[in-house]
Parts: sequence; C-alpha cells; structure tokens
Amino acid sequence: MAGEVAVRNKQVILRDYVSGFPKESDMYVTTDSTVSLKVPAETRNAVLLKNLYLSCDPVMQFLIRNSQQKMRKYVYCTPGSPIRGYGVSQVVDSSHPEYKQGDLVWGLTTWEGYSLITDIVPETSLVKIHHTDVPLSYYTGLLGMAGKTAYAGFFEVCPPKKGDKVLVSAASGAVGQLLGQFAKLSGCYVVGSAGSKEKVDLLKNKLGFDEAFNYKEENDLEAALKRYFPEGIDVYFEHVGGKLFDAVLLNMKEHGRIAVCGMISQYNLPEPEPLKNLFQIALKRLNIHGFTHRDYDHIVPKYYEFVLPYIREGKIVYVEDIVEGLENGPAALVGLFTGRNFGKQVVAVAPPQP
Amino acid sequence: MAGEVAVRNKQVILRDYVSGFPKESDMYVTTDSTVSLKVPAETRNAVLLKNLYLSCDPVMQFLIRNSQQKMRKYVYCTPGSPIRGYGVSQVVDSSHPEYKQGDLVWGLTTWEGYSLITDIVPETSLVKIHHTDVPLSYYTGLLGMAGKTAYAGFFEVCPPKKGDKVLVSAASGAVGQLLGQFAKLSGCYVVGSAGSKEKVDLLKNKLGFDEAFNYKEENDLEAALKRYFPEGIDVYFEHVGGKLFDAVLLNMKEHGRIAVCGMISQYNLPEPEPLKNLFQIALKRLNIHGFTHRDYDHIVPKYYEFVLPYIREGKIVYVEDIVEGLENGPAALVGLFTGRNFGKQVVAVAPPQP
Repeated sequence: MAGEVAVRNKQVILRDYVSGFPKESDMYVTTDSTVSLKVPAETRNAVLLKNLYLSCDPVMQFLIRNSQQKMRKYVYCTPGSPIRGYGVSQVVDSSHPEYKQGDLVWGLTTWEGYSLITDIVPETSLVKIHHTDVPLSYYTGLLGMAGKTAYAGFFEVCPPKKGDKVLVSAASGAVGQLLGQFAKLSGCYVVGSAGSKEKVDLLKNKLGFDEAFNYKEENDLEAALKRYFPEGIDVYFEHVGGKLFDAVLLNMKEHGRIAVCGMISQYNLPEPEPLKNLFQIALKRLNIHGFTHRDYDHIVPKYYEFVLPYIREGKIVYVEDIVEGLENGPAALVGLFTGRNFGKQVVAVAPPQP
Repeated sequence: MAGEVAVRNKQVILRDYVSGFPKESDMYVTTDSTVSLKVPAETRNAVLLKNLYLSCDPVMQFLIRNSQQKMRKYVYCTPGSPIRGYGVSQVVDSSHPEYKQGDLVWGLTTWEGYSLITDIVPETSLVKIHHTDVPLSYYTGLLGMAGKTAYAGFFEVCPPKKGDKVLVSAASGAVGQLLGQFAKLSGCYVVGSAGSKEKVDLLKNKLGFDEAFNYKEENDLEAALKRYFPEGIDVYFEHVGGKLFDAVLLNMKEHGRIAVCGMISQYNLPEPEPLKNLFQIALKRLNIHGFTHRDYDHIVPKYYEFVLPYIREGKIVYVEDIVEGLENGPAALVGLFTGRNFGKQVVAVAPPQP
C-alpha cells in the first residue's frame, strides 16, 4: 500500500507454555518478522504502539501458562506469539477514537518493538499519560499497575491508622517500596521483609522504613517478627505467602488486617508449603482481604493527585532496575522469581519520539 | 454458721491438662465435696448457682489445655478443679447487686451441681434470662453463645443478600443449624456439610437446607462443591478447616466472603493439614473474617427480638442432643470431637426450682 512503511520488529516469543518457574529458554528473541507502521485499513479501534518500556511483573507467569482458569482471556499469551505484559508506549498510528499519533500510553502491550493492539479497553487496558515531567518509566511501576495496587491496598483495602504497626513483605519490590513510604507518610511504624542485605539497606536508608530484615537469614521467622513487633502487627501487606505468612498469622494483633495481593513464593512449588496457623484467623478475629488492581481503575486519577506532588518534591522515591534492550527482557523477567531484581524491574526498549 | 445448709456437690474434675483430643479419662466425676448454699459472708459480688443445663462446646478444649495463649485467664480450668463452660443456672444466693435469688441466668459456670461464681461480668459472663416461655435448655445454644455466634456471623460479619449461594460446614451443629435457617429466612440458597447420613437427612428434611452432603462420603470435596455450586459460593461459614476449607477456596466466587469462627477439624492434629489453595484469596479477591461471639455481647437483645417470634411460631427449630446427669457430661463433651452428637449437645443437670 502506498505510503506504508514496514520495519523489522524485534520480538520476545513464547516458545511453549511454561510449567514451574519461568526459564529464559521458555522464550526466544527474534527479528524475523516485519511490521507495518500503520494500523491496517480494515482494522477498527486499534493502535499501533512503539514500545518504550516494558514492565516485568510476577503476574506475567500466569499469562504464559496453559491455565485452566483464564480470567480475562485476552491477556493470555499463546506459544509462537510475543508474550504480553504492561508497558509504556507511544502511539504511532491509531484507528481508535480515543488515541492519536504521538500519544503516550501505559497498559497492556506485547513484548516487541511495535505492537498492534486491537483489544483496547480505554482507561483500563491502555491509559493515556498526561504527566510527562516525571520519568516515563515510572508508568511501568510507580504510576502504573504497581502504584495502583499499592494505593488501593493501602488506602482502600486496609487503611492503616496513625501509629499502626505495619509489615510489608517483598518490601523492596515494585509495590512494597510504595507501601512502606505510604505507611511512613501516614504516621505508621513500618517494617519490611526482603531477600538480601542490599535490599534491607535500601529499605532502611533510602526508603525510610523503620526496620527491615532479610528473611533468608532468619531461621525462626516467628521470633524475627516478635523482635520487630513485640506487641503484634496491626496491618500486613502480603505478597509472598508460605512460611512468612504462617509466622505473620501468629504475630498479628487481635482484629489485625491482612491485604493479600499475591503469594509469589507459592506460585511454582510442586506442593504449596503447608500453613499451620490458620486457626489464628478465628482466635484473633483477623480480617483478610484479597484484592487486585483490576478492581481499582477508577482510583487512578485520585492516586495521581496524591502521589505526583510527593514525587515532584522528592518525598516519594522509587527504585527501578532498568535493563536496556528487548533482547535482555527474558532474563530480567525470569530474575523476578529468584529476587535478582533490585527494585522495580523494567526493560527499556526505545526512547520516545520527540 | 446458723441457717447455713451444706449439700453434697457432684463435680466433673479436670484430672490433668489435656493434650490432643479430650478423652473421658482426662476428667473424673466425684461427690467427695460439699458446698454451702450461701455465698460466704465475706465474698462480695458473687453468686451461688444451681446448674440446670451445661453446654458442650468445641471451644472448651482450649480451656482444659495448658495453653500458652490464655486470652481471658478467668475462663481457664486447672487440674483438680471442676471444668468450666457455659450453662443455664438458677441463682440460689447472691452478694452481687445485679442478681437475686431465683434469677435464671446463662453464661460461664463450672461443671458441678452448685457453683460459687466470683468473677462475674454482668451481661457478658452471666446474662439474666427474661424469656421463659421457650425451653430453658435453649439458653445453652439457640439463645446462648451459639445463637449469638450465628446471628453475629450471619447478620454482622458476612450478611448474605437474597439469592446468595451459601455453604455452611458443621451444619447440624449448634451454630450451623441456625446459620442455615437464617439463610433460608433471608432468601438464600443454602447447602450444609455434615458427617453422617442422619445429619444430612436432618438438614434437608427438618431444618430446610436446600441441599446437604456427607463430607465423609465425598472422595473429591472439590467436585462435591461444584455439584452443589456450579457457579460458585458467595458466602461460606467456616467451622471445620482443613480439606473442606481448601476445596471451598477453589469454589468461591469472585469477591466471595468467608466467616471463620472455628476450625474444629484442625485443633488436635499433630500437624495441621496443609492447605494448597490460599492463593485463591488474591486471585478471587476473597474476604475472610475471623470472629467470635465475645465481640458481640451488645447484639443479644436485638438477636432475641429477631429470633424469639420465629421460635414461638415454629419457624426456627433447634435440635438438641440432651444427656441426663452430670456424670454423663465427660462422654458428651468428648463426643463433640468425633461428631457423635446429633444437634446441640447439652447436659441436663437438674430441674429449676419452681
């Protein structure tokens, strides 16, 4: 077609459905295909995106499995096609009335240089970026799904009161580092659990946590929690599951609250770790709330109003672990599950068009 | 002292702290001691109770253990003394301004013919009975702790809406049979899980449950739940824990709610059964609420206003398993933990004074 430009399109292809922990060999990188930089004439309500940053998120492992429980079919990946995930992108061409060329967006895209996206739910699967005085990469985390998750979890699901004693697991991760900072801004005492000395240092010295510990170095997690919470935990933000969750149950205060948005330690075990202390739910009258950012699209504007001033004033900081190049994406994604990342894991694909 | 009458006092004595399931041999019955039918002159704020009915409750096992976590020290039992529990009693003598001779009360007493109670929290540990046109034994269950638990759980903790699909475990027990009837009165579909064919028949034919099943005959609890809840469970009232809880997690609807007031199957296992499906909490955004009747003393008047008309009209029925004689108390209590009871387990000790 006249005026159409086709370019090589680097892609991260799912080789086959993943079982157990994702491995680099479950994916491969190819530049075999080309892509037209126009939305095909007959395709309505579509955008052609140039991907700038891709986000590595624990939830992605579910999208690359042959799951029986596909909750939103359109987000799942199929072998032979690029994997899907969240990212920050620029609209190159659009047949969708809500998006025009040059728009910056964050949301569901595919792991390739350019993505033709045809299944758009505006403000849900693809959100327009209006604030560009902050790093664009933040829209993969702090201002994206992770930020929405942290804000919803903290202010809607389990709002802590001033003086509450708060525990955050996976505390240096994309969501955890925000939860800790929200807790400090709200006058709480906050302790973070993380998986290395460097992460513990980060929590205490850069992110303002009152205390932090390396769960891998604690033989007795229950005793560790008693050390930091001699009177018990008011609010726990749960991302890991397993032994830590079990120890937390024993250390909760009466009427304590737990917000669960993930259990990353349990996703890939052949058998989940047995939990022994569930009776504490009855004994201590605990409240446990599962939640996902997907129920909270509507709070994004309120969240931005809250968080952008803090970011601009440097009162909320965000640690990102950015690797350069789509070809380094599979290793970055796989590293999430061994805790190799240091802060929010991002893949930088390309700079935006000026 | 002149005018003082001393009588033989039959007692159920705790032989030694219990470990594992309570056994009959953990207790013994004696008539060795005598009791004065007067509150001792120097003892203030005390009552001397004649016990009429004693209640067998799963929670009692915690009171006869050497627990590290004694939540309310005064309710615990010590070896060599009578065990403690809930009952219906008549005041024989009183030095407490709130109680006078002849008053009928329900609340915390001791397993003996006559109890001198000195640690009274009015309207909490000892509640005056004002309605005597219903069987007095009901104040051990339907109008006592079990009723308060069921009412709080159903109407305060997890209020179901008309049309909700509700599952009740231990459904023929003291609390479960009420939950099922409340659910039917509220326009819900309700299924009960119980441990024998007779109990299943009771649920379906007398208590008005829509469906019921014998969990002991289901090799695949997950499939059983799918049969009764093809579209999933809205509300689950949890009393048993273990395998059933795990299967329920897989069968909950999104945003389903679980009220936990006990996990009787797990109390005495050397190792609790490993639960595999806790990630469903995050995936389905479940809400799990632990609760105990102890937080709901204030709703008792409202509960009576609600339930007494239904009882008088025969629209709420209550199945009791009453054994006669304090000497049969230990066997009745122990039977709770093997499901030997058929309905609310009560021990009839003596008739009230006219």
